[in-house]
Amino acid sequence: MALTRYESGLEKLTEIDGDAGQRVIDSLQSVCPDLARYTIEFPFGDIYQRPGLDLKSREIGTVAALTALGNCAPQLAVHINGALNVGCTAEEVIEVILQMAVYAGFPAALNGMFVAKEVFLSRGLIQDPAAE
Amino acid sequence: MALTRYESGLEKLTEIDGDAGQRVIDSLQSVCPDLARYTIEFPFGDIYQRPGLDLKSREIGTVAALTALGNCAPQLAVHINGALNVGCTAEEVIEVILQMAVYAGFPAALNGMFVAKEVFLSRGLIQDPAAE
Amino acid sequence: MALTRYESGLEKLTEIDGDAGQRVIDSLQSVCPDLARYTIEFPFGDIYQRPGLDLKSREIGTVAALTALGNCAPQLAVHINGALNVGCTAEEVIEVILQMAVYAGFPAALNGMFVAKEVFLSRGLIQDPAAE
Amino acid sequence: MALTRYESGLEKLTEIDGDAGQRVIDSLQSVCPDLARYTIEFPFGDIYQRPGLDLKSREIGTVAALTALGNCAPQLAVHINGALNVGCTAEEVIEVILQMAVYAGFPAALNGMFVAKEVFLSRGLIQDPAAE
Amino acid sequence: MALTRYESGLEKLTEIDGDAGQRVIDSLQSVCPDLARYTIEFPFGDIYQRPGLDLKSREIGTVAALTALGNCAPQLAVHINGALNVGCTAEEVIEVILQMAVYAGFPAALNGMFVAKEVFLSRGLIQDPAAE
Amino acid sequence: MALTRYESGLEKLTEIDGDAGQRVIDSLQSVCPDLARYTIEFPFGDIYQRPGLDLKSREIGTVAALTALGNCAPQLAVHINGALNVGCTAEEVIEVILQMAVYAGFPAALNGMFVAKEVFLSRGLIQDPAAE
Repeated sequence: MALTRYESGLEKLTEIDGDAGQRVIDSLQSVCPDLARYTIEFPFGDIYQRPGLDLKSREIGTVAALTALGNCAPQLAVHINGALNVGCTAEEVIEVILQMAVYAGFPAALNGMFVAKEVFLSRGLIQDPAAE
Repeated sequence: MALTRYESGLEKLTEIDGDAGQRVIDSLQSVCPDLARYTIEFPFGDIYQRPGLDLKSREIGTVAALTALGNCAPQLAVHINGALNVGCTAEEVIEVILQMAVYAGFPAALNGMFVAKEVFLSRGLIQDPAAE
Repeated sequence: MALTRYESGLEKLTEIDGDAGQRVIDSLQSVCPDLARYTIEFPFGDIYQRPGLDLKSREIGTVAALTALGNCAPQLAVHINGALNVGCTAEEVIEVILQMAVYAGFPAALNGMFVAKEVFLSRGLIQDPAAE
Repeated sequence: MALTRYESGLEKLTEIDGDAGQRVIDSLQSVCPDLARYTIEFPFGDIYQRPGLDLKSREIGTVAALTALGNCAPQLAVHINGALNVGCTAEEVIEVILQMAVYAGFPAALNGMFVAKEVFLSRGLIQDPAAE
Repeated sequence: MALTRYESGLEKLTEIDGDAGQRVIDSLQSVCPDLARYTIEFPFGDIYQRPGLDLKSREIGTVAALTALGNCAPQLAVHINGALNVGCTAEEVIEVILQMAVYAGFPAALNGMFVAKEVFLSRGLIQDPAAE
Repeated sequence: MALTRYESGLEKLTEIDGDAGQRVIDSLQSVCPDLARYTIEFPFGDIYQRPGLDLKSREIGTVAALTALGNCAPQLAVHINGALNVGCTAEEVIEVILQMAVYAGFPAALNGMFVAKEVFLSRGLIQDPAAE
């Protein structure tokens, strides 16, 4: 039996970012559970399901866009994790954020890079020099 | 002898978008030739030269960002051409623009898709139904 | 039998802006018909279907947001028409655009007002003084 | 005797958000009291005084725009409170923020909804599940 | 007798950009004359009247901001003219637009520079090479 | 012997904001030292080196743009300090931020002014009334 958009979306979101799906559901539970549902159904149940662009490239595009937009730090952190989870290297993530200096300016690239630094620290990919 | 940043930048820009480099040089000649020089030196002489992210992925990221920012139609057209020139399929370009509906909203995705439509028409990749 | 999201979305879009649905379908036919489908399904099949906010208020919110974002003139024109079609007066549309001077600055408000002027002219709500 | 723009603006701002006017005056006292004065005079002494759009609809438009712009969380919190104070229901506020997923993307809608959650918690309209 | 905000605003706008004041009044006459009035009263009757920052520096700031925002080409053209009228050199205007490549990215700087090129051509400050 | 772009950039950045250069180098050391290098080379080694616009005017333009963009608070703080270091008065900084209410709306101006307040407090230019 075919999965619903919600079911396949939650599966895809879990593939991309482990427990991020459950966290978004929990965080919206008391205020607007339907926004959690739509977030799972449309982005992950419709768009990320599509053939024609591999998941690694989708995450490259998302990290680029969220860095350039510059006001979505929480979502950028989710998708930096997602990019790493679907096979991007830390170097590839760094490169796409760095490249945004060209298209959205240095502040956007710097702020995006600081989000990446937090994610990399949390995954033990880099060391916090201040902690040494 | 090593190429200057300008020389390797112009070479890279030519690889990505044929005569776009010369067009940007010409269009800025009378007002600010140095902006043409910097556009060649920093984005294409520094950033796009870097290893660590292949050129196809760089263009995916750029098309994503320019679609999301939403006020850079001329540059988006250049980079849709660039994406196709470095090996992206039209389908991959369409997918990354479509995906921006999630991160920057439907108007940004629609306006980006209309830029892609013009580029695809100019390359004969699609037919203009109105012309039939 | 229950309507699909697409069917109820197209119905709602037709209620809001007459033939805009068919125009968006046509304009995307050759490049990405699925973007037309999603545009009908998610915004108009999911969101605008919801109780809890009347259609007039939804259009007030959309005109406000598109004026403030400032890079979606075609979509703003569609929704100024939509606002008028679902019962907003021209004065209400003018007021919400004017108010955006406060939140997004005078250029955004001015550019939004010029879009409204075109829509009002096309509907015969105002006269073009230059045509007199 | 007619009220000055400042007096009627402060009255309107007090009507919309209780002590927000005094808080903005206080917070700017040491750095730029004139910005507080202009904030009271132009938005609240000129724009929100105008007939032609009821106060509920004005707040719907403002909540929509601030959610879409995405970098004005403090002002969004003020106007979510304002919307509730002038007669919008929590459901209406939720709906207009949710709708911004369509026009400004899911990150903008999510971040706006988290601001609403804080405001609703502070007013006791919802319960913090983590506190249970 | 003291000038009203409108009168001193119109005087200042005329000082900055000759007939731009009358053009904005005319263009809004049929749709929202009050937006023209507010545009004259608040920006030019309040802000540009203030001591503490000379008019040249005000125009430098405005050209920078409008270039960075990137979706206000008509207003940018007005203020490039304004900058030149209050004593900025073409070179200073070019430098501030160029500098925006750093803060808002190369597309914003390029698009701003093309607006400057049109203004400079219209004032005979540069020659159109294509016309030679 | 001529300085490299990096050397003259670091010198310029040190002139503008004392130890900001070293802080950006340190903060990026573990994640992307090349972004620190480019930030020094292009903005400060190329752009801020140019004649044609004095350093005070450059900082006026940068404070204006970062206030208007609205999502670069850390960089805005750096450049408010920079503006003061190269000869702008606190009043001039306040005026240019205030002026952004016109071009980017009151929330952008308010949020920019609160960044200025923090910088002024840290330099002892104003007193924190809450500390009295």
